[in-house]
Parts: sequence; structure tokens; C-alpha cells
Amino acid sequence: MHFASDNSGPVPPQILEALAAANQGYAMGYGADAEMEQVTARIREIFEAPEAAVYLVATGTAANVLALSVLCQPWQTMFCTRQAHINVDECNGPEFFSGGAKLTPVCDADKMTAQDLRAALEGEENRGVHGPKRGPVSLSQVTEFGTVYSVEELAGLGAVARDYGLPVHMDGARFANALVSLGCTPAEMTWKAGVDAVSFGGTKNGCLGVEAVIFFDPAHAQEFEYRRKRGAHLFSKHRYLSAQMLAYLTDGLWLDNARAANSKCAMLAEGLQAAGARFTHPPQANMIFAALPRSTHQRLFAAGAAYHLWEGQLQGPEHEPVTARFVCDWSVPEEDIRAFLSLL
Amino acid sequence: MHFASDNSGPVPPQILEALAAANQGYAMGYGADAEMEQVTARIREIFEAPEAAVYLVATGTAANVLALSVLCQPWQTMFCTRQAHINVDECNGPEFFSGGAKLTPVCDADKMTAQDLRAALEGEENRGVHGPKRGPVSLSQVTEFGTVYSVEELAGLGAVARDYGLPVHMDGARFANALVSLGCTPAEMTWKAGVDAVSFGGTKNGCLGVEAVIFFDPAHAQEFEYRRKRGAHLFSKHRYLSAQMLAYLTDGLWLDNARAANSKCAMLAEGLQAAGARFTHPPQANMIFAALPRSTHQRLFAAGAAYHLWEGQLQGPEHEPVTARFVCDWSVPEEDIRAFLSLL
Amino acid sequence: MHFASDNSGPVPPQILEALAAANQGYAMGYGADAEMEQVTARIREIFEAPEAAVYLVATGTAANVLALSVLCQPWQTMFCTRQAHINVDECNGPEFFSGGAKLTPVCDADKMTAQDLRAALEGEENRGVHGPKRGPVSLSQVTEFGTVYSVEELAGLGAVARDYGLPVHMDGARFANALVSLGCTPAEMTWKAGVDAVSFGGTKNGCLGVEAVIFFDPAHAQEFEYRRKRGAHLFSKHRYLSAQMLAYLTDGLWLDNARAANSKCAMLAEGLQAAGARFTHPPQANMIFAALPRSTHQRLFAAGAAYHLWEGQLQGPEHEPVTARFVCDWSVPEEDIRAFLSLL
Amino acid sequence: MHFASDNSGPVPPQILEALAAANQGYAMGYGADAEMEQVTARIREIFEAPEAAVYLVATGTAANVLALSVLCQPWQTMFCTRQAHINVDECNGPEFFSGGAKLTPVCDADKMTAQDLRAALEGEENRGVHGPKRGPVSLSQVTEFGTVYSVEELAGLGAVARDYGLPVHMDGARFANALVSLGCTPAEMTWKAGVDAVSFGGTKNGCLGVEAVIFFDPAHAQEFEYRRKRGAHLFSKHRYLSAQMLAYLTDGLWLDNARAANSKCAMLAEGLQAAGARFTHPPQANMIFAALPRSTHQRLFAAGAAYHLWEGQLQGPEHEPVTARFVCDWSVPEEDIRAFLSLL
Repeated sequence: MHFASDNSGPVPPQILEALAAANQGYAMGYGADAEMEQVTARIREIFEAPEAAVYLVATGTAANVLALSVLCQPWQTMFCTRQAHINVDECNGPEFFSGGAKLTPVCDADKMTAQDLRAALEGEENRGVHGPKRGPVSLSQVTEFGTVYSVEELAGLGAVARDYGLPVHMDGARFANALVSLGCTPAEMTWKAGVDAVSFGGTKNGCLGVEAVIFFDPAHAQEFEYRRKRGAHLFSKHRYLSAQMLAYLTDGLWLDNARAANSKCAMLAEGLQAAGARFTHPPQANMIFAALPRSTHQRLFAAGAAYHLWEGQLQGPEHEPVTARFVCDWSVPEEDIRAFLSLL
Repeated sequence: MHFASDNSGPVPPQILEALAAANQGYAMGYGADAEMEQVTARIREIFEAPEAAVYLVATGTAANVLALSVLCQPWQTMFCTRQAHINVDECNGPEFFSGGAKLTPVCDADKMTAQDLRAALEGEENRGVHGPKRGPVSLSQVTEFGTVYSVEELAGLGAVARDYGLPVHMDGARFANALVSLGCTPAEMTWKAGVDAVSFGGTKNGCLGVEAVIFFDPAHAQEFEYRRKRGAHLFSKHRYLSAQMLAYLTDGLWLDNARAANSKCAMLAEGLQAAGARFTHPPQANMIFAALPRSTHQRLFAAGAAYHLWEGQLQGPEHEPVTARFVCDWSVPEEDIRAFLSLL
Repeated sequence: MHFASDNSGPVPPQILEALAAANQGYAMGYGADAEMEQVTARIREIFEAPEAAVYLVATGTAANVLALSVLCQPWQTMFCTRQAHINVDECNGPEFFSGGAKLTPVCDADKMTAQDLRAALEGEENRGVHGPKRGPVSLSQVTEFGTVYSVEELAGLGAVARDYGLPVHMDGARFANALVSLGCTPAEMTWKAGVDAVSFGGTKNGCLGVEAVIFFDPAHAQEFEYRRKRGAHLFSKHRYLSAQMLAYLTDGLWLDNARAANSKCAMLAEGLQAAGARFTHPPQANMIFAALPRSTHQRLFAAGAAYHLWEGQLQGPEHEPVTARFVCDWSVPEEDIRAFLSLL
Repeated sequence: MHFASDNSGPVPPQILEALAAANQGYAMGYGADAEMEQVTARIREIFEAPEAAVYLVATGTAANVLALSVLCQPWQTMFCTRQAHINVDECNGPEFFSGGAKLTPVCDADKMTAQDLRAALEGEENRGVHGPKRGPVSLSQVTEFGTVYSVEELAGLGAVARDYGLPVHMDGARFANALVSLGCTPAEMTWKAGVDAVSFGGTKNGCLGVEAVIFFDPAHAQEFEYRRKRGAHLFSKHRYLSAQMLAYLTDGLWLDNARAANSKCAMLAEGLQAAGARFTHPPQANMIFAALPRSTHQRLFAAGAAYHLWEGQLQGPEHEPVTARFVCDWSVPEEDIRAFLSLL
């Protein structure tokens, strides 16, 4: 009954098998491995972007901070939601890698609207040289609250960014979960909507640790390579990153994993709702936020369930509602969900 | 016949098996996995350092730049050899992570002597607030030229650093190769000789990608954790780093691999010497630099041998000597060495 | 009729005379001039802080960012109001000089309350290593809205900071204006209230360009010197900074200038109020924010008055109120104020 | 008898008079003052560069580090002589402002040759993404050893830089001294020789503290403005910087001062030579390096002469030669020189 995070479950056998398969003979290091060529080709194909520059790193934070450092000057500010991973969960990594840029929270909600974004953009850069200048817009898809921007919402935000001449970054740590939720194509969810660079997550959806950074405009390629190296994120035995990503993108594993995670989460959400839980955000992917009476949490934890309370503590008045976060990854057994729901 | 690098060979089966074994059920992320506790305990035991702080990262450059950023202030300069990896092979990573510190090359040779170091230290900080201030001393063990500092040499350098109140870092990307070459204990090669922090390499000696950073004074621990996170080097699925390192340190795999690499390199060196090669540095570990006539290189490359010319080009006068670098990892087959030598 | 800023008026003759007096013979550079010794002695006396470390720089932003860089680690966040100069008017200087720290707006108001501060501090650092850590608290005195923290308010904020072990910085670009407004001692307004470091402004109150940075704990001294030099803020002909500051602190010039500025602003405020202006913040020093009908602004601008509209534009419905900022420095002629008021 | 530095003498009356003249009424801040327009026009005229972007800062280090930060990426290395001010006298300021770039010493001599530069450039960037990339070339004119690059030498270096597509920066802290020494035009000494950006010094040649940064390609202008502001180097009461620079450039004051300094230094050099001093570098501007017997130094210091010993100490064997640095500014009285020489 483990719903704490989609980075705490195991990886599917295909990923380990790919590592074993890649573990043959000698291979050029630092991204010059044969597997990487295949990864690039595969991602270009999936994204219908034959010129895209593609790079691999091992952590989602690395993907985000390196991608943003290419798009953002030190005297600019990046626009994101207040709860964006880059704002609250990367220990000032974006500030560090950008050389001291700022982050401007556009809204407190899970998603920013085009109106929010326009207001935030208008709020900056009215101070001439004195204030920070407008920099990139970064969107989390799936959002930090488990919701998913529609293609129309993305296109609307992309249009605002374009109005101001600003690049758009997508933090796609849960890219596949969003994609299968929307049922659109990767191109529709990215460059067709105005996205310039994507952190394309593998780790949360079944890899050991690999993320792709995709720039649809290859002009960014050279700078990214220098930044990745000096950020100490270039792997010498790069083939083991490539092998993971290649297996992930082979035979639809990435989509299957995401569908499994989403549908298990939907099953969990249905049961929670039936038990009277109130969702703070509509369940749309593999992560949900639901309020339950404190006494219910106490019973669930006592029975061994693992998940995070989001607001409030385990101790306090019994009937008070306490919001919790539940995340399903591809691997969570349905019987665990059933066992959990039967406890409700 | 692949002698290009010790990061281009495969990893031994124990490492992949350890990944598979770790791939069970749910595990806390970000270093809170059970395997990491074992890694810390094991490294403390190996180093006879029961209070050491131990961290894992995925690249050698990350280990170096993060360790040094804890030891070095932005207005200081780090002391190393001119060819040190941190000086020439990390794309200004030490400058970046330290917030703009400098590197002062102490000498052009493979190893710095205590006298070199003292002279370099005297050469700095004679300009009051105007020049850079003295910062940490960083020693590569194995050196970038394949030689190994003796325990006495290390202790001598450590004593100089202590005279100036400076911390000492060891870039141990090939730590195990140096250790088995010297036949001393890890403690003797490090803290007993005055070393404060070690980049303890796993990647070049048989892991997919894992390095430990060891601080003998745990006062550095908290700062390192923040720096690792904001440097985007903290793994969410950390257990797969821990599992590698644990397997590496189990049943002497790390020492066996290093002994295999060193003895294969010795076999190669012997053959090269017999064939008239001149070594620019004495072969002491798993990397050698040898001058051969250009025509010999041409023949070897034509036959499929892979290694790097270090100085000079493949084209030119036939009999001119050209220096090449040959590296053996644990995996290089002895028949490859024999085949190679028979070509000479 | 110039009320645009307290950095656009002339300097009093004493400052230029001091430059001329200092312009004799040879003087040691880089802060080793005889005048600087006097400056240090004078500031220690004024602040009843015989051990304080005192430094001069030429801009208020330099004073702020250098002082904060000593107090703040790159993985921390500084706490200030949303409109703090360091947050909106220094083009990411605090982020740059701190190596990538963040700023957390504590409130949207002119002043933060102890309760605001405590809430903001509780809001951070609940994410372990993932989020930014708590760093220094920075208070603007006079605030960016022309109000002044009382000694009790400062002491209350200082107490909260101390509860969390955090240092307190005061942005005293208008230090003297606040001091004469409160009628307290410099010690009461700073270290007795828990302030650790002060940007002690001279520029806005009659100097050409000089600010002191004061650390009540001299342990910060050495680091500040390195940071000032590498920030390119150490003057070679330092005597001309010292001379300004010394003249400023001689015969009460600093207090006289501040009293003149404040009382002229009070005269202006009285007249504005009589004319029906609504103050968005109570006039307490030398800067006021008042709403007037748009048509009034149009008339004033047409007559040659100079000041900034703070919210809203000059064009629009005539009777709509538009808020403007009016600042008086020591030099503004009373007849200008009278002329201005007669236009109302 | 003060020959310690050209930043320790007084400023000529014209500079103080200009400050007084500028000290009238209200002026826009932050570079929007009327005097700055004149400064820009004057510098464009002097340099025959009608499109040049011109900025003022208060210290030579600020001019250098800000100019270089526009020309250099964080993953690059700047090329300069080992004793360049930017390398040894700016406390890692270039590393800080560039975000972590490196400096590569091209030679140990006072001047680099085209051959030196080409060799140094070839020595870098042979390591793909691993090593630092080639960045700007920075030339000190006058050099740190008092010599002056000829126009031909500059053009030769500029040609090498152009071959590699690299920008050229001139550290002209003593620009005027070099110019009058060569008898060429500012254009010949800069953009006609391939220089892209100049730190045009005023401070060492008679100003209180002002330097211009000149970019011949105005495309750099906007970025410089942001960098100056976030570096805390934008003056609010900017008119006092402008006034200094304008006076400096009026009626040939800058050239007169430089001629005075150079000719006094020539007089000093002549006397030193007559007294048997050996010059380590040929006297060409206003700074000389001469070896004298230790006993002579002892006698001179005892008589109150002020200057720096460059190599060696005041105590030791009497007849051993010890090299000293002597600098003349515009203000040094000829009788002081005569008095000094009579002591020899």
C-alpha cells in the first residue's frame, strides 16, 4: 500500500535487460555511444521534430536547471507557478545554474492561466534597468497537483509567451502521464503549442534515472553541451543512460507504464471518492490530493499505508479533514489498492 | 584491443546483479534507502573512520566539484598540477561550483612535490586583498599520467598544506588502482596523510556510474547535502547508486578489479618495453604513456587497436616517436593484450 | 518643483569642501587612508559599537548585496517585503552576489510584522534538503513606502529572527531620515533591536555617492573585504569616499539634512492633505504616496512639477484618483513646495 | 618623493571644479544626466567611432570585469599575460562576473606576442567539451610592467584573435599614458587594431574615480547595462561620474596629465640610469622597474622616499640588486624627482 511517490517503486524488467544488453564490449563515452544515436532518432520521430537536439541527464532537476540555464539570462526572471518544482523543490538550483536569475510565481494554483501569465509579465519589467527582466515561462505537465494542462491551455500560454518574445520550457517529469491523459501527440503537447524545450522524464515512469532534454531549435545544442559538462552532468559511461531511455521508448513501454499508473490512480480515486474523500484538485493523471478525516489517516497509517499528508498533521481532532497526496507508479499492485480501499 | 579509456569497458556481472537485487518493492528516495546505510557503514569501516560523512553522486566530476566547493571560498585559489582533471577536463566546473574560485597549477609534472607546493603557496597571497587567497590542495591519486603518490609523498604534501591551514582533497577517480599499487590501507593513503576529503571513484573501476564523496570531518556534511541538491546531483531513486557502490565494496570486488586492471596494464607495459617503447612516466597503475615510432602506431591503428595519441599526430615522418596513452580496465581480455603485443 | 527622488538634488557645500580638503598630497589607497580611520572611529562612536567593522562603498545596491552576501548562503532564501529594494530594484544583484540565493517576500505591505515574518519563516524549510533554507531577514528603514519601523517593531522582528538563529540586515539607504523621525539613537534602531549589519546610506541624504556597511560583529570583516574587492567595489582613491562620509558625519550634517528633508516633506504632506489628497501610507519621513485626481496630476505636470506616478497613467478619466510618489531631499526649496501647493 | 602608485596623488583642480559645476539643481539619475550625453559624444569623437556604446563606472576593476563578462561565456577561458591585473589583482573578479570562466596566462613577460597568443590558443580547446573553450583576449595597455604595445603589435594580436573568432579587450587603466607614448590616435590603438572593448581609465590619470567602458559594437550595449546594474555599479547620482569624465576629456586634460606623468617618469628613469640602475623593462610610459643595490634602497627609504620593492626584501646583503617599481602620476613635483635623484 505504497502511494508515497512515483520514485520509490521498482523499474520494469525491460530496463534492467537493456542495461545488460548494453553491457557488452567497448563503447565510446560521453554521449558518443551508438545507443544515443538511436535515442535521438527515436525522440525526433516521436516528437515529429527531425531537427531537435536531444540530451540525456540522470535527474529531473538536472534536466530542468540545465534547460532553463540555456533559456534564461542572469538578469531575468522565470515565470512559473508558486508550487512549481523549480521554485520549491530544487534548492535554488535554477538560480545557481542561471547565474542568479529570479523566479516569479505567476499564481498559487496548480495551473497558470493565460490571464495569470499576462498579468505577471506585465507586473515585471516596468522598472527599466532596475528590476529583473522577463525570462522564460516554465510549465509543469503533469502539474505539481496532479492536473494536466489541456492542449488548448498550453497553446494559450505559448501564445502569451510569444507575444512577449519569451521561450517556453516544459517540466515534463511526468510527461507520459500527461500525454496519455490527454490522448494527444507529443508534438501537440509541445512545439505545436509553443514549447521550446522539454524536460522529458523517464525516472518517475519506470527508469532507474534518466531524463531527456529536448530543444526543438538545435541552435541551443552547443551551449547545452558546455553547460551539461561544467555542471558535472555528462556521463562517461553514457551508454547506460542511453540504454534506459531506448528501452523506455521501445514497444511503447513509456506509454504502457504511464497508462498503468494513471489507471491505477483512477481506481484509487474512485474508491476514495466513494468513501467520501474530497479532492482538492481533479484527478487527471497518477497523483491525487484528497481530504479525509484525520481518524481515517490514523487508521490507514496504522495499517501500513504509506503516503504523504500534504496539509495538517496526523495528530489533532479526529474528524477534521486532512489533505493527503497519493501517487501511483506503474508498479503498484491492484490488490494493494483494493486492500487500501477496503480499509477506508 | 581497446586501451582508450577505463570508462569504455563493460561492468562486471556483480554490479548488474546488485541492481536487480535492489529492484524489489518500495524504497525511500534521495539517499534514505537502506542500502545507503550499508554503504556508509562499509566505507567507514574500510577507511577506519567511524565518523566520516559519505555521499554518493554519479560522476567523477560531480564528486570533485562538489567536494571542492565545500572546501574552497570564491575568493580563493585551489592548488593542483597543470594537467589535473579539475584543471583541464571539467569545463570550468570547479570555478562554477565554487562561485568563481581560481585554480593555480603547482607544476607541469604528473606529481607535485612538497617543494613545488610550498613554492606555489608562497607565490600566492602576497598581494593583500587584491590577489586570490590560498585555498585547498587537490591531489589526483592515480595521477593523470598513471603514476602513484607514495604514502610518504602524500604525507609530505599534507604537512605543507597543514602548515598553511589548508584542506586537502584527493581526486580518487582511480583510488583503488592506486591503493593496490601501493599496498597500503585506505586510511594510510588518506586521512593519516592529511587528506580531508576524497572523491572515491567507482565508475572507472567497474561501476555504471557512482562515486563516493568522503569527508573525514562530518562538520562538512550538512553543507554538502545542500550543494549536492542544488547542483542537481541528488538522485531520487538513490538505491540504484547505493546498490552499485555496495556491490563494488563487497567481497573485495573493487580491489579485484583494480588488481586485474593494474596487472593487465603491467603485462602491456612489459610487452611495450620489450618492443622498445619509451615510457614518459613509470607505469605504476592501469594507465601508461609510451612513445613508439609513428609507423608502429599506424600499423596498430590499422589492425584495429584503439587508444589515444597523447602528443603528435598519426600522420608525419615514419620514424618519429609519438607518445600514446594506454589504459586497461578490469575487463580487457589478456588475449587482446597478447594480440596487440604480437603486432608490435 | 522637483519631488522625483532624493538622488537627483545637489550635495551640500560641506561635501565638496571635504573633497577639496582631502585632495592634498599623497594618500594610501584602498581604504588605508587616514580619513578612513576617522570614519571608522566616528561610526563606532555614533553607534556605541566600539568593535564594529566599517566599510565604504559607492552605491546603496553595493552596500546591500555585499552585506547580504556575507550573511546568506547560496542555498538559503532572504526574507524581505515584496517591494523591498533588494527584491525589485537591484536587477538580481542579491542573487548574483550570494551565488544564487532566493528572496522570499514576507508581505505585500510596506512593513512586515513579527507575525508575517514568523509565518513566512514557517512556510520555508519544510521540505528538507529540497527547498531553500532560511537565510537573513532584511528590513528597509525608511521603508520603500516612506514609513518607519518603530523601535519596538524592529525589536519584535529581531526577536523572531533570533528565535530561528537568523541574522538581520537593515537597508538604511534612508537611515538618517528614519532616525530623526523616530528620535531614537542609532544603537536603539540597530544592534539593540537585533540588527547585525547595516547599509548606512549617505548618497540619498546629501553625498555624491558613499554608503557605509557596518557589521556589529567584526568576525564578518575579513570576508567582506574579499567580497568587496572581487565585486570591484574597492576604491583605489578611497580617500574621496572617506572624505564624503566624514563630512557627512561631522557637525551633525547627516542629521540636519535628514531633518530638513523630513520637515519639507511634512510641509508638502500637510498641503496635499489640505487639498484632499489621500495617503496610501502615513507620511513619516521624506517620501509620501498620495492619491490625487488625474486632472490634478495633469495640471501639475503641465506646470513643470516632477514626480513619479506610482499606480496608473497620466491619461484616462479625469476624476479617477491616481497615486503618486513625492520625495523631498535636504535641498528642495520651500518656495518650490509652496509653489507646488498653490497649484493644487 | 612619492612614487608608489598613480592612485595616491591628488586630482587636478579642473576635476573638482567640474564636480562643483555639476552640483547645480536637479539631474536625472542612473546615467540619464545631460553630462553623460556629452561624455558619449566626446568619446565617440575621440575614438572616431560614432556608434560606440559608452558607459561609466567608478573603478578600473569594475570596468574590466563588466566588459569581460559581456565578452566571455562561463565555459570559456580568457587569454592574458600572467601578471595581468585581471589575473593577479582583481581577487577573482573576472571569474565571479563571468559566472566561472577561467583565465589562461599566455606568457610570463610584460607583453604577449602574436606567437605566444597563437600557441596559447592552440593549447586550449583540444579536449572537446571537456576543457574550457577559447574566450576573449585581454591586453593591458600600458602593460603591468610599464611597457607599451606598439600599434603593430596590437594589430598582430588582433589579427590572431580574429583568426579564432575571439573578441579583444583592452585594459586601458593607463590608456592615455600609452597613447601619448605611442603618439598614435585612439582609433589606431583600439578598433583599427582589432580591439572590441576598452576599459578607458580616468582614475590613475587624475580623476577621483571614473572609468569608461567602450564597446565599438553597440550590440553589446543592452547586456552591459543589465550587468552593470546587477553588479551594483550603476550610480544613482551619475552626474558626478559624468562630470569627472567630461572635465578629463576637455581641453586635453587627459593628454596633458599623461604627458606630464610620462615625462616626469622619463626624467626619473634618466636619473636612475645615470646612477647605474638596471631596468628590467624599458621605460615607456609612467611606470618603471629598476634594480638598485639594496643599500641604495635602504638609504632612499630612510630619506622618506615611497615606492614598492617588486622582488626581494629591504633586509639582506647590501650589494645585492633589488628590483623596485616607481610610478609617476601627473602631480609629482619635479623637485621631488630631483631630490630623489640627488639621494642616489
